[in-house]
Amino acid sequence: MRQHLNLDVFQAIPLKAVRIDDRFWKPRIERNRQISLPYQYQQLKESGVLDNFLRVAGKTGGNYAGPCWMDSDAYKWLEAVCYSLSTHPDPELEAKVDEVIAVISEAQDENGYLNTYFQWVEPGRKWTNLGMGHELYCAGHLIQAALAHVNGTGKRSLLEIACRLADHIDSVFGPGKRSGLPGHEEIEMALVDLYRFTNEPRYLSLAKYFIDQRGNPDHRFRWELEHLDEIGYGSLNLNQQFYGTSENYNGAYSQDHLPVREQSEVVGHAVRAMYLYCGMTDLAVETGEYALIQALERLWENVTYRRMYITGGIGAAHHNEGFTHDYDLPNDTAYAETCAAVGMIMWNHRLLQLKGESRYGDLMERVLYNGFLAGVSLDGQKFFYVNPLLSIGKHHRQGWFECACCPPNVARLLASLGNYIYSQNRRGLAVHLYIQGSVQFYLTNGIPVTLIQETNYPWEGKIRFTVELAEPNEFALLLRIPDWRRKYRLTVNGRQLSASVINGYACLKRNWNPGDWVELELEMPVEIIKAHPLVWQNQGKVALQRGPLVYCLEETDHSSPVTQIMLSKEMEFRSEYHPELLGGVTMIEGEGFINELKEWENVLYRPIESRGPLKKVPLKFIPYFAWDNRDAGSMAVWIGELT
Amino acid sequence: MRQHLNLDVFQAIPLKAVRIDDRFWKPRIERNRQISLPYQYQQLKESGVLDNFLRVAGKTGGNYAGPCWMDSDAYKWLEAVCYSLSTHPDPELEAKVDEVIAVISEAQDENGYLNTYFQWVEPGRKWTNLGMGHELYCAGHLIQAALAHVNGTGKRSLLEIACRLADHIDSVFGPGKRSGLPGHEEIEMALVDLYRFTNEPRYLSLAKYFIDQRGNPDHRFRWELEHLDEIGYGSLNLNQQFYGTSENYNGAYSQDHLPVREQSEVVGHAVRAMYLYCGMTDLAVETGEYALIQALERLWENVTYRRMYITGGIGAAHHNEGFTHDYDLPNDTAYAETCAAVGMIMWNHRLLQLKGESRYGDLMERVLYNGFLAGVSLDGQKFFYVNPLLSIGKHHRQGWFECACCPPNVARLLASLGNYIYSQNRRGLAVHLYIQGSVQFYLTNGIPVTLIQETNYPWEGKIRFTVELAEPNEFALLLRIPDWRRKYRLTVNGRQLSASVINGYACLKRNWNPGDWVELELEMPVEIIKAHPLVWQNQGKVALQRGPLVYCLEETDHSSPVTQIMLSKEMEFRSEYHPELLGGVTMIEGEGFINELKEWENVLYRPIESRGPLKKVPLKFIPYFAWDNRDAGSMAVWIGELT
Repeated sequence: MRQHLNLDVFQAIPLKAVRIDDRFWKPRIERNRQISLPYQYQQLKESGVLDNFLRVAGKTGGNYAGPCWMDSDAYKWLEAVCYSLSTHPDPELEAKVDEVIAVISEAQDENGYLNTYFQWVEPGRKWTNLGMGHELYCAGHLIQAALAHVNGTGKRSLLEIACRLADHIDSVFGPGKRSGLPGHEEIEMALVDLYRFTNEPRYLSLAKYFIDQRGNPDHRFRWELEHLDEIGYGSLNLNQQFYGTSENYNGAYSQDHLPVREQSEVVGHAVRAMYLYCGMTDLAVETGEYALIQALERLWENVTYRRMYITGGIGAAHHNEGFTHDYDLPNDTAYAETCAAVGMIMWNHRLLQLKGESRYGDLMERVLYNGFLAGVSLDGQKFFYVNPLLSIGKHHRQGWFECACCPPNVARLLASLGNYIYSQNRRGLAVHLYIQGSVQFYLTNGIPVTLIQETNYPWEGKIRFTVELAEPNEFALLLRIPDWRRKYRLTVNGRQLSASVINGYACLKRNWNPGDWVELELEMPVEIIKAHPLVWQNQGKVALQRGPLVYCLEETDHSSPVTQIMLSKEMEFRSEYHPELLGGVTMIEGEGFINELKEWENVLYRPIESRGPLKKVPLKFIPYFAWDNRDAGSMAVWIGELT
Repeated sequence: MRQHLNLDVFQAIPLKAVRIDDRFWKPRIERNRQISLPYQYQQLKESGVLDNFLRVAGKTGGNYAGPCWMDSDAYKWLEAVCYSLSTHPDPELEAKVDEVIAVISEAQDENGYLNTYFQWVEPGRKWTNLGMGHELYCAGHLIQAALAHVNGTGKRSLLEIACRLADHIDSVFGPGKRSGLPGHEEIEMALVDLYRFTNEPRYLSLAKYFIDQRGNPDHRFRWELEHLDEIGYGSLNLNQQFYGTSENYNGAYSQDHLPVREQSEVVGHAVRAMYLYCGMTDLAVETGEYALIQALERLWENVTYRRMYITGGIGAAHHNEGFTHDYDLPNDTAYAETCAAVGMIMWNHRLLQLKGESRYGDLMERVLYNGFLAGVSLDGQKFFYVNPLLSIGKHHRQGWFECACCPPNVARLLASLGNYIYSQNRRGLAVHLYIQGSVQFYLTNGIPVTLIQETNYPWEGKIRFTVELAEPNEFALLLRIPDWRRKYRLTVNGRQLSASVINGYACLKRNWNPGDWVELELEMPVEIIKAHPLVWQNQGKVALQRGPLVYCLEETDHSSPVTQIMLSKEMEFRSEYHPELLGGVTMIEGEGFINELKEWENVLYRPIESRGPLKKVPLKFIPYFAWDNRDAGSMAVWIGELT
């Protein structure tokens, strides 16, 4: 297996081998563990997610609670907790996990079927509404949770449930059986992972089957639209809202418009798209299929060159929670769902393993520090579903949502962050993210090595690595040179050197001695960024970026709405770290201009020469991820240039 | 009556006394009469509007067609045709009018009730859903049609139907009777007009009653939300969609948030708001009530200083078809409904009569030549419902709509345009709009005067007036000096003079001799306009205006999307009339800049210094009203300034 893959293909270092001891991330991961995860358990109880399982298990009655994909909230929470348990044993949290798994276990049918909505509300309609029913989606999340559970705790209780469900699905769908595919992708990547863990080839075949079904001429979801009345869905009648009528069905919403190998544009629901591309990438890693890899590259280029916010956020439109057309990136009405950011990180992480090219690591970093991290408040208790880049002051994080996909998605990414930092390949060890801590890995000859990483990233660009190993050994240390850097400097044991750069990684191949140290210094000036000229929403505007961080202005630091602020070409900026501000951030200060509003009393439009004088105002930029943690007010990432 | 009103209060000159013989407007009015009105009659038939009356009259069966306010489409069409008949007798059109009135007559109940939706679909629920049922709204349109009919043809058939309905409504609603008010305002202004025609004071009292009910603490529409289930509306269950739930009811959608005399902000559905303000103004003309006039002035200042597009379009949001908050004027998602533009013209025309101040005439002109006129295609057969100021090329006029309020509203305004041009007051004659033709009026001593107006407005700013009267007589000629002018020049019989300006009108008071002539020359340079700095959507952008016309760029005149074009500060513009272009328009030509897109291949964001060179491109601006009459493509009113 995988012999088709080249020398640079990475294998992520598993969570348990990675320690995070970082000024920036450690407190966030701790808050996630100590506050978000217990808080979300409370929400699972209060929103009725757990009651749904109890109902099906015969332990309580009453009405099913929430949308039909409610089960997945529990699964994503379980997955998050199990990642956390793998690095931070916590008997109290583990007891809650066991309790929830016991409930899930009792809800599972004899034949392996498990989905509380269909079991409780529409038992006669299982597997009939693949477009919006979310049965396969929920199953995928169960499988991912089960793998996190067995990896994190060594217990197989959830894995057994997941395998029984996967086997049941495999008995229903596939060549010679019922044809079908999930409306919301997710199970594809879960099945590949289940195959990797169990070595059961049926799971890989089933993942490939679902991927191959997409965009085929049968168009299962159109068929469902045609038979809506006949099947008589109950509360699931969202199909027409999102897929249209059977006459105008085009499949874009669920990436069912074309066979996946022919796709070139990211379309439809952004989270669905990301999860599909994750599954396609996982499959490509296993099969090395060139047509699949080519499609993935076309899709990646489409989204990153034409359909992505500077924050890495994706999905411009509310109506489909997804993509629209090239260069359409409205700032105020941006959807940029937090879950789509999670999906974008997951997909880029997978592409990075497959291709070994730093551009995927660059994207992973951009999304992580901006579009993703804005999704959670500094106190870990409130979440954005939608992440606009401009607000007039009415958009705020919430504790929970009726459709609560985002909070546990944030939690599972934070809890598994260690998984995204390092990879190994046949050359040696690659560092994708600069996060203080350490990693233990084994050379191809079985020798263990510990790499210690020390840094004050993302506030400073200096990273120091120390190699710990018993005796000298040769391997390559590969350090991602971020796309945002201007200059960088590398020293080994204090001696500057110019390393060769392979696929965007500085490659330090040498015979390492115990205690050898490497310093990477990335220059981190304030960059003034322009968007592509066809992004009309950003015409005449600039954004500030420093290192991996996109900045914004908030009204609370200024005396007027930030939407009227303009920057001059001669602007100069000062960066300074403020330990007391927003949990500690580097603020960028400078000067801007605003119009004297008193010149504009009682006039809405006037000739340009009578617009009146401008006034200088001091400006304070904060990282975008930290906005909406103080007084409510306007916020803008893209700031007008002085004309 | 009306003795309370000051010397400057105007009385509009009726339609029959005005002749329009104008290069710009006459062909449009002709197309309206010869193409739009017959075409709309066809649409009334095909959409089932007339069948609904036939059903109730027992002449046909089947299902009621369309939304519950379908009757009003017929009434507005009748009103439009009757305006047209008053200046252009047309036996064929008049026969259609008689035919439609006969059908309406047969549908009326014995007691005067008339509304085919409630008669056919929900006969037990008459007057129970005032929030969304539109019964009073339809009645108002019937009354307006009836007055246009009797004024235009001398026939009283429709007036009798209207009076029977008005009397029935008066028997149902009012002090000591049932309390209520219309969810969609309209009947208020119709009842004042019916009072003016019939001198029946009950109609004025009923109008005042409905106006006074609005915003009272009972909140009838909230009560309806509370009783939705109990009353069990059929297809009318739009109430919650637009009014919210009874718990969060705030009344803003129907201007029911505050008693009208306490209102200061334009809120909710824009057409409803405009029709309410029309009724309030009509009532104020009759009563001179100061509190009402003050409220109207506050509302006018709020909309024109803070909530109006440069085109005069109003209503920024789709979700409520109406107003949002101060300075929120998105260009691409603007609603700016054509009907709201019609309402804005009607309201400003009424304020102009009440207050005699040119600023209302200025507004009337701005809306007429821009936000309103864009509503109809050059061929008179297609209409905009929504009028954005920026399009990526997917927004186009349609022949008809499921909710077809706009096409007949355009038709009735074009057919009654003569009514908006001149007024009389005790000083003499005022000219509000510069449209070639003539007007006949009578001095206070009963002497008839004809004023001939010659002009090539809006393309040229020169207007020549000739006074025709039998013998010398003293009166004042009041000429509106538009807000957009820089300089102007007045000559009488070739001799320049500087007239006093009263309320924005140049006042030429003299003893006029037969054949005396006046020339007004308004300088008409290209103006570069800025929007208020708090309109963030227009930050760093300018719009071009020449005379009363707002201009735009269309992709068909340029080789690339117009959204990326930038204008330099040193821009110079040339204006030239092109008789063959778009029915004859003055085009503005100049030069702009675009980025070289080849520098931006495969990059979405980059540091400002690497944005690459700019390229000069020739620009062709056309009047906004004329857009979307050629090849589909992007369009923009607000153009970026070079930074």
